[in-house]
Amino acid sequence: MKDSAGIEGLVSELQGIVGVDRVSQSRAVREQHGHDESYHAPQLPDAVVFARSTEEVSAIVKACSARRVPIVPFGAGTGLEGHVCAVAGGVCIDLSQMNEIIRVSPDDMDATVQAGVTRKQLNEHLRDTGLFFPVDPGANATLGGMSATRASGTNAVRYGTMRENVLSLKVVLADGRIIQTSRRTRKSASGYDLTRLFVGSEGTLGVITEVTVKLHGIPQHVAAAVCPFPTIEGAVNTCIATIQCGVPLARIELLDDDQMAAVNAYSKTDYKVAPTLMLEFHGTESGVAEQVAMVQEIAAEHGGTDFQWATLPEDRERLWTARHNAYYAGLAVRPGSGGLITDQCVPISKLAECLVATKQDLEGTPIPSCIVGHVGDGNFHTVLMIDPADKEEFARAAAINEKMVLRSLALGGTASGEHGVGLGKRKYMETEHGEALSVMRAIKAALDPANIMNPGKIL
Amino acid sequence: MKDSAGIEGLVSELQGIVGVDRVSQSRAVREQHGHDESYHAPQLPDAVVFARSTEEVSAIVKACSARRVPIVPFGAGTGLEGHVCAVAGGVCIDLSQMNEIIRVSPDDMDATVQAGVTRKQLNEHLRDTGLFFPVDPGANATLGGMSATRASGTNAVRYGTMRENVLSLKVVLADGRIIQTSRRTRKSASGYDLTRLFVGSEGTLGVITEVTVKLHGIPQHVAAAVCPFPTIEGAVNTCIATIQCGVPLARIELLDDDQMAAVNAYSKTDYKVAPTLMLEFHGTESGVAEQVAMVQEIAAEHGGTDFQWATLPEDRERLWTARHNAYYAGLAVRPGSGGLITDQCVPISKLAECLVATKQDLEGTPIPSCIVGHVGDGNFHTVLMIDPADKEEFARAAAINEKMVLRSLALGGTASGEHGVGLGKRKYMETEHGEALSVMRAIKAALDPANIMNPGKIL
Repeated sequence: MKDSAGIEGLVSELQGIVGVDRVSQSRAVREQHGHDESYHAPQLPDAVVFARSTEEVSAIVKACSARRVPIVPFGAGTGLEGHVCAVAGGVCIDLSQMNEIIRVSPDDMDATVQAGVTRKQLNEHLRDTGLFFPVDPGANATLGGMSATRASGTNAVRYGTMRENVLSLKVVLADGRIIQTSRRTRKSASGYDLTRLFVGSEGTLGVITEVTVKLHGIPQHVAAAVCPFPTIEGAVNTCIATIQCGVPLARIELLDDDQMAAVNAYSKTDYKVAPTLMLEFHGTESGVAEQVAMVQEIAAEHGGTDFQWATLPEDRERLWTARHNAYYAGLAVRPGSGGLITDQCVPISKLAECLVATKQDLEGTPIPSCIVGHVGDGNFHTVLMIDPADKEEFARAAAINEKMVLRSLALGGTASGEHGVGLGKRKYMETEHGEALSVMRAIKAALDPANIMNPGKIL
Repeated sequence: MKDSAGIEGLVSELQGIVGVDRVSQSRAVREQHGHDESYHAPQLPDAVVFARSTEEVSAIVKACSARRVPIVPFGAGTGLEGHVCAVAGGVCIDLSQMNEIIRVSPDDMDATVQAGVTRKQLNEHLRDTGLFFPVDPGANATLGGMSATRASGTNAVRYGTMRENVLSLKVVLADGRIIQTSRRTRKSASGYDLTRLFVGSEGTLGVITEVTVKLHGIPQHVAAAVCPFPTIEGAVNTCIATIQCGVPLARIELLDDDQMAAVNAYSKTDYKVAPTLMLEFHGTESGVAEQVAMVQEIAAEHGGTDFQWATLPEDRERLWTARHNAYYAGLAVRPGSGGLITDQCVPISKLAECLVATKQDLEGTPIPSCIVGHVGDGNFHTVLMIDPADKEEFARAAAINEKMVLRSLALGGTASGEHGVGLGKRKYMETEHGEALSVMRAIKAALDPANIMNPGKIL
């Protein structure tokens, strides 16, 4: 915002809506809201408003809209592509205080929550229902943010991403109107799929204020295992064969040797430092036993024979917490570093080629790195630990990232498997989508003609 | 089209694009293309063009667009809500000759087909791959039409609808431009979900010319059964409890006593005439045995003890063919009748209430009817067999349909579980979607400003 008189008038209006205490122009608060957990440079909003209801968000958006002031929705700030950077200043709407679990229906296996509820909060709330919410990005993100970025995680191979798990959204549009994107029935053929349009729209079409999600029954039996492999090819080929055999794995995660070393150091584990699969099986006791037998047979063919099992809940918890902290473990390898994290995703038939070429690229660079991925979906990340102050190193890392994105695209893949476009992947949208990008632009222009909703993202 | 000189000029242009033989203005061809399999009165296009490639469709659309002539895409003509009725005349683009299976990737478990490929054609093609395509509306519809109407069927409870099974679409936009809606990776967070936007858009945003779909592994073991119940409540409560217990059923279909009588007469079967569940179980041999044991226990609690098993492929084929022909069986109860078929879908916790109230409504009317449904999804249909010539009877049937739609909406459900909006459900869009309908209108206006793409449908 260039016009500081304008922002003062708006701030008074916002204070009138939510009260003086929930509007901040302090540098500390603005700094906290101007960046996420990635390498993207902070860009501060002019003001931060803490909303507590959809109606407040609507009033805030109307006030901003009347002055054409940009709006950036903010959940937990755990994004990885600069989604919350206020590239044009404006007002950040912090939704973290909208953290009410509105309804849980065990009979329908669904729940409606305010956008600021985090995935861990929801699962703690569900503890006694026999149900759980499966989508699990590494961070304890909010469901609003996860919807906005079409997040996924380790369970997606079995339970789907936010695309498959969001049943309906409440959204405040760019002019302040409030819509419900659909009914919460399991299926519907009634009109355009607005739910899926807003899932992954990254705040550019509206502010998500409520999320209705599918829940899933906690499986009768769960087993988890860690299995090292002599080569990364062995690990990835085990994954590919397992998926192609139709084994209904709940999780199949690949970590390379560098990532395993980082995990051991960060999470005080003593796993073998080798390319490794972390697996989880859900089902009945005999169903899990069948899955395990099939995967062990496939893994053995690729040199993976040393399965280390975690069947007790606390052992599994430790295993998956270590996995969820893989990104932070990577950063800790080089204290003070920032992470440039890639998000490659290809058809699974191209995964081995893509992963092996990526590993070779990394061997040729002095920048510390590790690979971790949701290989059952054809998705993996390379974390490049860079010195945020070293511009030359950043440029080298960015060049590696670009090479990897273009390789994914050349192999029929996408620029982002799960982190979203934000600032970091915008330049690849034309290559990935071609003419379809103009359709996205037309939709954006139709729903946000003044371009105030999280401007500068995706398009 | 009022302007017959205009249509003549356009016809010449279309003949220049596809050749004289593939443009028809004959009354017989236009009549064949002016209606679907439902009660909706035929409304004829001015001309029918048979396209054989995306490029031809693009050229046809450009020619129509230049003259602002309406376009109606046509697949197999098996819709049930009047989607292909040419309410404003114009050009019907028949895609049935675009029936090439472009690629099948067993490794990625996906396939790309032209829009005119039917579901049975695809599955016959897949016969030796160990894979199948699960979405199965009653009719042998085209994949283009199934995408356009967000179709589902008996397998949706386990394998999802077209929403979950379409990975990407090739679409000709209203101005003739060609887009690919996304890459075919299993997941992506790269921009707006155009794939899901076009799935269910019913030809109103563009013409779907190619469809990339997920395939699924043929299960190791399959068992199917038919089980009659003393009451419809017993059958529906068995379904609800089974879903809530997390049994991963492949199919669970409910047919009421009237529907079973119709099936017996039409398909020469001798099932007991009673409220009945038709079930199918997919998995390993022991997995199926576990599922069967659980369902038998639940069914017994609700009076369903007489399971009749079909384990041989030919017996299962006979069972499911009888089920797929349920609509035609219903119509055959009253020779010469047309079907007014409802498409109720509610949260499963409301299913028993909705179904029982529906059955009571039907008992009070002289119009022959039967109920059949995908109850695992909360979705069921009432077929009212009406005399197409009897306006009073039609009005009575329409009033029953309206009561049922409004009941579904009041119970948190949707006006259409799987048949789409077309002409028949338009009047309920405002009640179902409220303000969100304006977002649909804005998208329509942005992508088809002259309103030439299947005008008069959905909105």
